[in-house]
Amino acid sequence: MSGADEFAVIARHFAPLAASAGARCLADDAALLDAGPWVVTTDVVVEGVHFLPDDPIGRIAQKALRVNLSDLAAKGAAPAHYLLALQWPAGRDAGEIAAFAAGLAHDQGVFNVTLLGGDTTATPGPLAVTITAFGRPHGARTPARSDATPGDDVWVTGTIGDGVLGLAVRQGAYAEPPAARDYLVDRYQIPGARVAFAAAISRYAHAAMDVSDGLLGDAARLAAASAARLVIDPAAIPLSSAARGWLDGQPDRYAGLGRLACGGDDYEILFTAAPGVRAALAAAADDLGLPLARIGRVEAGAGVEAGGLPVGAHRHRLGK
Amino acid sequence: MSGADEFAVIARHFAPLAASAGARCLADDAALLDAGPWVVTTDVVVEGVHFLPDDPIGRIAQKALRVNLSDLAAKGAAPAHYLLALQWPAGRDAGEIAAFAAGLAHDQGVFNVTLLGGDTTATPGPLAVTITAFGRPHGARTPARSDATPGDDVWVTGTIGDGVLGLAVRQGAYAEPPAARDYLVDRYQIPGARVAFAAAISRYAHAAMDVSDGLLGDAARLAAASAARLVIDPAAIPLSSAARGWLDGQPDRYAGLGRLACGGDDYEILFTAAPGVRAALAAAADDLGLPLARIGRVEAGAGVEAGGLPVGAHRHRLGK
Repeated sequence: MSGADEFAVIARHFAPLAASAGARCLADDAALLDAGPWVVTTDVVVEGVHFLPDDPIGRIAQKALRVNLSDLAAKGAAPAHYLLALQWPAGRDAGEIAAFAAGLAHDQGVFNVTLLGGDTTATPGPLAVTITAFGRPHGARTPARSDATPGDDVWVTGTIGDGVLGLAVRQGAYAEPPAARDYLVDRYQIPGARVAFAAAISRYAHAAMDVSDGLLGDAARLAAASAARLVIDPAAIPLSSAARGWLDGQPDRYAGLGRLACGGDDYEILFTAAPGVRAALAAAADDLGLPLARIGRVEAGAGVEAGGLPVGAHRHRLGK
Repeated sequence: MSGADEFAVIARHFAPLAASAGARCLADDAALLDAGPWVVTTDVVVEGVHFLPDDPIGRIAQKALRVNLSDLAAKGAAPAHYLLALQWPAGRDAGEIAAFAAGLAHDQGVFNVTLLGGDTTATPGPLAVTITAFGRPHGARTPARSDATPGDDVWVTGTIGDGVLGLAVRQGAYAEPPAARDYLVDRYQIPGARVAFAAAISRYAHAAMDVSDGLLGDAARLAAASAARLVIDPAAIPLSSAARGWLDGQPDRYAGLGRLACGGDDYEILFTAAPGVRAALAAAADDLGLPLARIGRVEAGAGVEAGGLPVGAHRHRLGK
């Protein structure tokens, strides 16, 4: 889009999303952020890497926002504001920007977050969305990856492996039963972002992190940061009924489980906590209707042991 | 780069830039930002749009950072931290990342700013660098674009038009005298970012904004935001000796001045202030060795009147 179009797009589609006074109606060079402290994170999603070119544009916007809100939740913070830096392909219909903004507007309501500012530019390359999200810590602690202690339990929210299966469905690599299709594609295109569980993370978690690059690879990073060993029970890794259905059809069930446990795009929270808070955690998750699984324990040592499953360290991403 | 490479790159090249405790050595999902208030801004620079593919990679990093610091300066804020979201082309030598990081390291020293966090991803598209910068306001006010008052003087820092000429030099469109070449190319590739003048902006400016899309187009945006009229004296627009040399060689001097006044990539500060602070502003600029020009006045009304020069509203950018 040209310079004049850029200003029109901002005024028409994005300014209505900028409700806070600090955003200055997106008509200034910069925005004002209230007194903190703040938890801040930034993540880029790129067409052909993190989403498919023909994913619905409103869902691309939601995914770009939610991958950041997921990081905030893993640090025990409630989302408040975000900045949007949008690279819009020169050849892509600018008419789609309305649906892109509508996706953001929807999620602003879901997560109680407002647009604070941003930048919009044309690009000769793929669509790319960089979001920087600001969260307010629920408590005094923002759990780090490095806070795991031997003796801790290891927990994960939700279910694992739906994202990588949703991508497989979209790529035609999995002839899924019709009932599972929408569920898996939704999980790939619109991550859950466990924002509602952030208060419990703040209160009970020792170490915590967002699971975005595969459960076992991310567990290895948490173990390394904490200079500890994570022992994970493969049978305890939580699977949706759709993922269990896929797994039941695999000739090598063990390799299939490895694929789910090393695939990316889960956007769940992996955390450790003292055994004494098991009941409190279960109650907090139950109140939210959120599945929560105790999948292992922290020991002295290094690395991840998961019943012999390969501990993948790479993202299973498009184009990689 | 693959996932494993990404972590190695962050640990080797970027973690040394992350000096503050809140950055958590870039080994966490998110960073912590001290109590504010903060001025925050985000800008993307894209290969083929905001810089040339063969611009030196360290200078690309510097430009990405400085265009953001320029926004902070225009709001009267001192830079403190930044987030880096890097889209690195799959086909570009990852060995260049060391020089990219060295460009950032250099400017961290110049501007007293540290890396707080970020994201690195491979892209099938062009190199793109999104930086989000955090500044601490020098004073109670962060001047908006909308704060101009009839009776104000209009001022601009530095010189205008060097950036667009530097781009012309790089594109072979201007057979400049050798003495001017490096100066103009430097001005295009490494914007000044008037960080040192931010305290004076905070103290004396009414309206203020970063000049990045052309002086007259940006003046029109300031006028619109302030619901006022800016009358600018074309003869008062400050030009470097290199730009004057170019202008002297133009068959149509008036059209040439219009091109300089509507070209982009100046990264100067346009601001308005009461006539009573003229001496104080001149002294503040003089102390810094910074050229400062009084180029007009604010009146009741609307729009920009600049002796009949066309008031461009479009960026003169690559690929547009």
